[in-house]
Amino acid sequence: MESVASAPGKTILFGEHAVVYNQPAIAAAVDKRAIVTIKDNPKGVTTFRSDDLGFEAELDTRKKTYKLIKGKPGIIRYVLEILNKWHDEHTPIDVKLSLNIPIGSGLGSSAAVTVATLAALYNYTGFPFNKRVLANEAHKIEQSVQGMASPLDTAVSTFGGLVYLSREKEISKFNTDIKSNFVIGYTNKKGNTGQIVKSVKFLKNKHPRILDSIIKTIGKATDEAKDALMTDNNSKLGELMNINQGLLDSLGINTYELSRMIYTARGNGAIGAKITGAGGGGSILALVPKNAEKVFNALKVEDNALIAKITQKGALAKVRE
Amino acid sequence: MESVASAPGKTILFGEHAVVYNQPAIAAAVDKRAIVTIKDNPKGVTTFRSDDLGFEAELDTRKKTYKLIKGKPGIIRYVLEILNKWHDEHTPIDVKLSLNIPIGSGLGSSAAVTVATLAALYNYTGFPFNKRVLANEAHKIEQSVQGMASPLDTAVSTFGGLVYLSREKEISKFNTDIKSNFVIGYTNKKGNTGQIVKSVKFLKNKHPRILDSIIKTIGKATDEAKDALMTDNNSKLGELMNINQGLLDSLGINTYELSRMIYTARGNGAIGAKITGAGGGGSILALVPKNAEKVFNALKVEDNALIAKITQKGALAKVRE
Repeated sequence: MESVASAPGKTILFGEHAVVYNQPAIAAAVDKRAIVTIKDNPKGVTTFRSDDLGFEAELDTRKKTYKLIKGKPGIIRYVLEILNKWHDEHTPIDVKLSLNIPIGSGLGSSAAVTVATLAALYNYTGFPFNKRVLANEAHKIEQSVQGMASPLDTAVSTFGGLVYLSREKEISKFNTDIKSNFVIGYTNKKGNTGQIVKSVKFLKNKHPRILDSIIKTIGKATDEAKDALMTDNNSKLGELMNINQGLLDSLGINTYELSRMIYTARGNGAIGAKITGAGGGGSILALVPKNAEKVFNALKVEDNALIAKITQKGALAKVRE
Repeated sequence: MESVASAPGKTILFGEHAVVYNQPAIAAAVDKRAIVTIKDNPKGVTTFRSDDLGFEAELDTRKKTYKLIKGKPGIIRYVLEILNKWHDEHTPIDVKLSLNIPIGSGLGSSAAVTVATLAALYNYTGFPFNKRVLANEAHKIEQSVQGMASPLDTAVSTFGGLVYLSREKEISKFNTDIKSNFVIGYTNKKGNTGQIVKSVKFLKNKHPRILDSIIKTIGKATDEAKDALMTDNNSKLGELMNINQGLLDSLGINTYELSRMIYTARGNGAIGAKITGAGGGGSILALVPKNAEKVFNALKVEDNALIAKITQKGALAKVRE
């Protein structure tokens, strides 16, 4: 039997950092996916392999350890956590991962891999589930591995489309007909999310009145962005991205490299560009209605880039007997 | 008889743009000055000359016209306006300007020249005045020439030190013992202040709730900066400059060049760096407690820079018989 499941990566459109202080956030699934295939292993060992990432390992799922055959499988921790919790160690399987979400691009590869692996495994073992169960469990797996995790990433990878996280931490889907491309630029310098979140908290403790205002203003921009998306208002969305970028800068999480990418994107036709994710290194997101290749090529001169669209396709799973 | 007067340039520390919407602002006089010398002209023509700027002209003060002898004297409009209003055309004089405030650096060279010229002329003609009269009149001159002018520039050039413009448009002086150097970086690309102010208004009309919040937050930052200055809290002042920079960016007035200068300053020891003035090109201001030369030299690689300190010395005037 072969069970195949896939899940999309995500990009945070609005609300990063503010979400830590109970402001809303918007994330979108993008057309880059993690695809996980699970098959019986006839040789009696459970393996995890990804040709895209160039690694291969034999797993001891009960002990959550592995014997590396090749590569550096950072993502293996999520697979081990899932198999340890949900898989019968006496039924050896081969887990194969195809990934066209670049690791370190800020597109939430770990959430996509977690959701796809869980969905493939649930189907393989015949465990009944729906998307709500899948999203919840994937979030728990991310929490166990990372210590702390946003429910947004796994929700987006599960449900697809646009997801709004409210001030009350409720997740809801909504739609847009905006067909613009997004271009994502990312540096090799990666920020440490935990440290960056702490640095904002530190600044907020020193300047509570000012930071409170800024964080609430980001919340307002997020709500207006939801309106802009729902009314397919491209130019308003772009303006709000640019405004949000300044507000993120004021939280001290911008860097020279991110700023350079943002100006490169704007200078080559992006109508909005902002940091996506925690900042301090990492990724920017640019809204490019026309000629996304121009922005893509300009970013590639000094950094990494990819072109992505919002996708309605969330987690998909099927079984071939 | 020779009448000599001088007045300092200024830098806006906090509140640019927000001041247009009745938020407070802080400006400081800096140790770069305009020095104006007025003498009788024995040949019967009124002249205006500046060796620093490399220009010389003969003036017809009644008609507000001039015959250029050399150079491009943009600043001459202020001198003509003053002489037309305050000087007896039948008493020819030589007006000489020494200027160590670079034009286009954002240090308010026109206000300093206006204040110094007025003070020198008042003394030359024996017109009794005090600083309040001088500041008011200099503001009126700037308004006539520019159509619109902030009273802050001429107030700072007149009174020296730190000047706070309140929400009620009242100007007051206050003091700091902060001895840090400021480094000012400026590009040759100059923004058009009128257009930039309009672009903020346009954005505000489109996103009133968000822009109102941002503008009020800049006001809060300005008030906290006043506290930081009065309590000589260098590091708080620097943090507030960085926060204010992000807020200015969110108004859409930042540029790649300004951003690059800001990161260059921060990367070389500035504890705070922000746009000063209208943005869209123009100047940045960096607070550098130690080794200002390092920031200065780093900025000079691609742009222009100068090191300045806050000065208590406002307009000074004397007469030599």
